[in-house]
Amino acid sequence: MNNEFQDPKNLHYGIVGGGLVGALLAVVLAKKGYKTDVLERREDIRKTILEGGRSINLALSYRGLKALGMIGLADEVKKMCIPMYGRAVHDTGGEVRIMPYGINGEAINSISRDGLNRMLLAEADKSENINLYFHQRCENLDLNKKDITLKDELSGEITKKHYDIFFGADGAFSAARMSLMKTDKLNFTYNQSYLNHGYKELHIPPAENGGWLLEKNALHIWPRKSFMMIALPNMDGSFTCTLFLSLKGEVSFEKLHSDAEILSFFGQYFPDMISLMPDLLYHFNKNPTSSLATIKCHPWSFEDKMTLLGDAAHAIVPFYGQGMNCGFEDCYEMSNLIDMYPGDWRTIFEEFTAHRKPNSDAIADMAIRNFVEMRDLVADPEFILKNAIDKTIGKLFPEKWTPMYTMVSFTETPYAEAKMVGEAHDKILDTIVRKEGHDIGDRLANADIGKVLEKYIS
Amino acid sequence: MNNEFQDPKNLHYGIVGGGLVGALLAVVLAKKGYKTDVLERREDIRKTILEGGRSINLALSYRGLKALGMIGLADEVKKMCIPMYGRAVHDTGGEVRIMPYGINGEAINSISRDGLNRMLLAEADKSENINLYFHQRCENLDLNKKDITLKDELSGEITKKHYDIFFGADGAFSAARMSLMKTDKLNFTYNQSYLNHGYKELHIPPAENGGWLLEKNALHIWPRKSFMMIALPNMDGSFTCTLFLSLKGEVSFEKLHSDAEILSFFGQYFPDMISLMPDLLYHFNKNPTSSLATIKCHPWSFEDKMTLLGDAAHAIVPFYGQGMNCGFEDCYEMSNLIDMYPGDWRTIFEEFTAHRKPNSDAIADMAIRNFVEMRDLVADPEFILKNAIDKTIGKLFPEKWTPMYTMVSFTETPYAEAKMVGEAHDKILDTIVRKEGHDIGDRLANADIGKVLEKYIS
Repeated sequence: MNNEFQDPKNLHYGIVGGGLVGALLAVVLAKKGYKTDVLERREDIRKTILEGGRSINLALSYRGLKALGMIGLADEVKKMCIPMYGRAVHDTGGEVRIMPYGINGEAINSISRDGLNRMLLAEADKSENINLYFHQRCENLDLNKKDITLKDELSGEITKKHYDIFFGADGAFSAARMSLMKTDKLNFTYNQSYLNHGYKELHIPPAENGGWLLEKNALHIWPRKSFMMIALPNMDGSFTCTLFLSLKGEVSFEKLHSDAEILSFFGQYFPDMISLMPDLLYHFNKNPTSSLATIKCHPWSFEDKMTLLGDAAHAIVPFYGQGMNCGFEDCYEMSNLIDMYPGDWRTIFEEFTAHRKPNSDAIADMAIRNFVEMRDLVADPEFILKNAIDKTIGKLFPEKWTPMYTMVSFTETPYAEAKMVGEAHDKILDTIVRKEGHDIGDRLANADIGKVLEKYIS
Repeated sequence: MNNEFQDPKNLHYGIVGGGLVGALLAVVLAKKGYKTDVLERREDIRKTILEGGRSINLALSYRGLKALGMIGLADEVKKMCIPMYGRAVHDTGGEVRIMPYGINGEAINSISRDGLNRMLLAEADKSENINLYFHQRCENLDLNKKDITLKDELSGEITKKHYDIFFGADGAFSAARMSLMKTDKLNFTYNQSYLNHGYKELHIPPAENGGWLLEKNALHIWPRKSFMMIALPNMDGSFTCTLFLSLKGEVSFEKLHSDAEILSFFGQYFPDMISLMPDLLYHFNKNPTSSLATIKCHPWSFEDKMTLLGDAAHAIVPFYGQGMNCGFEDCYEMSNLIDMYPGDWRTIFEEFTAHRKPNSDAIADMAIRNFVEMRDLVADPEFILKNAIDKTIGKLFPEKWTPMYTMVSFTETPYAEAKMVGEAHDKILDTIVRKEGHDIGDRLANADIGKVLEKYIS
């Protein structure tokens, strides 16, 4: 049956996945008066104490807040955040250099994934239009019949539910996406690839007095060229740390088995961490080593019946802090398209893929490139110099020049545009350094620097 | 339980898929005394009359025959073949130009996919070591427990079977491969992409006297730059034709709906076909428009429990006539590795991926490139000239120069090597044409041409 031209308030919507994106989308739909079921595989995280060990802290920035603003939650969420105004770059000697993220004191916001997810689920629970179902594993999604087969992970019971419209918001290893992969004639392009690096979560506890053992309002990085550690602040005074390291090779996770090997590795590369992490060995041995996947696919939707969004459509690596922000922006754009073409789901879904796919491809590529920037370049004098020139130009000529990081994190400039402009900027910065010489860095505070730089950007 | 160091004759092998590769592999294993079940989703094609409409004719060449030779079937199979010594290139005016494939009269062999599959199944049926099961859809493959869940497509019955070792030979849309995709920690890289072109099978009937309406011993091509038709001879005097055409756009399948549109398209681009295909409209309307996928993945195996092979590991487009040949060569190399490391399945599987993956990647890329060659370049004077020089050098200096097509189709040179050498050749051929001028074509039969060409290749 064709959904088009039916009053969308009379349809029944099934969202596969009740993570960040699924829960936000449910609230967005419910506010439009749409009856929505959220089908989540895991338990209700509001009722459990989480073990952690596999959730990179999230950095909420402009795009995510914009989407949360749609449902009136931006201010409440901000109370759960710790603003990080810049990178705190730690060298092996223990020296720390702060590199601001913005040019006007902007910050990205450290937030607990689970805390935010709980809040969104609670918000969804308040709505009469939303029903939440937990422990429901999607076993099969029949897009032609619009039936979903669910297995209750506790009871083993199999149920079949029918929805008019499906949203697949079930993450990188999406079961909903499998239904597209199995659909004949769709010519579903799919690409899943992994970095050679994996990651492991570690932990810096609060100070004895309850404060933070490192600068609270920064994202800490220990760049070591081919690998790195990062740390993001938590509200309780602790930091969640993540070690990103090659899975195989000379210096890699596969070489870190015994306690002695682990301690020797940290002693050599992160000597300051040993005193900061009294439970280093406990966490290192207990927490899994996880993988970093990038997933790209096309098309995201099938007729007027289903679309993917969030990680299910475009899983990216975490190095630009944009995975959640991009997924939330998906919800924002979906909301706009629904308002623009009410009830015309085929058009909504086609426009959604057409608008979002080039942008999610762009942020996927930028995120991989940012791994090199974080683990290596932030300690590179040439990069530091260009970064300073970039910011100086951005401050002097705000109408003409916005640094790429600012575009991505503090504006809603489409990612694809940010990438293109940022790449053009990078070439100009190379030219400036080549023509003006490396001592340009010393002249950035001079009164006439504007005249020097202006000729390169007009 | 670990399979290593157990006598491989005491293990039980499950092959998912009884198509060309699955059936050949079963016979190969059975000849080593290994007890093997073949689990095929479709009916037993030996008992049914096939409708056709979706099977590009196959071109059996050296690698495929080499593998069939292992099980003593090469000569019998050759009796089912029609040798094709070259391409017969048809222009819109009805002119035909023959371009030989080899430099010494070599041929590729037109064979019916189903005829060959029936023969291989019959051969498998002769062995006491093999059990064939049909109508068995693989619903799930649990690689840790080594259990496969099968659904009988006729009765609906679900059964679970246990094997010590699995082979996934179930084609481009492999269910066995899904088990790798779902395996945590494997970091399974997967890429599935489609050409913008689809294909549709058509049919030229035998002549009234029982002969062939076109030259029998050739692969016919009607190159039309962005699309093409091909025809391969069948034993009964007919030709199986395939139209390769863009799925969308100005000239495309989506523009060919009404009978008038179809006839107008053929009248414009393939005027000679209208009289050759009296049932053109019937076949065009009845036969599906199918897609052309390339699938690459890595790794192909999981521990010592399962490996993929054939299209399940590396589906390619058909334009080099190497899909089956590559799959059969997989069986040949698998057989050698089994003899080299008897019972050490982990090593066998790891070596198999290590050896075959670079070669299947290479033929996948060459096959896509050959589409351009077939639909466009075979009618291009520059290409025809270079092809003639290529063959002349190959004839004059057989120790130093083997044309790429010969390496791929008439030798067992690893595909990756053939690709690399062929690309180097192509640059040399460009240089020869640039330096010697286009009239080099007129001088290829001259007595001194060897001296002219030799300096470019030493």
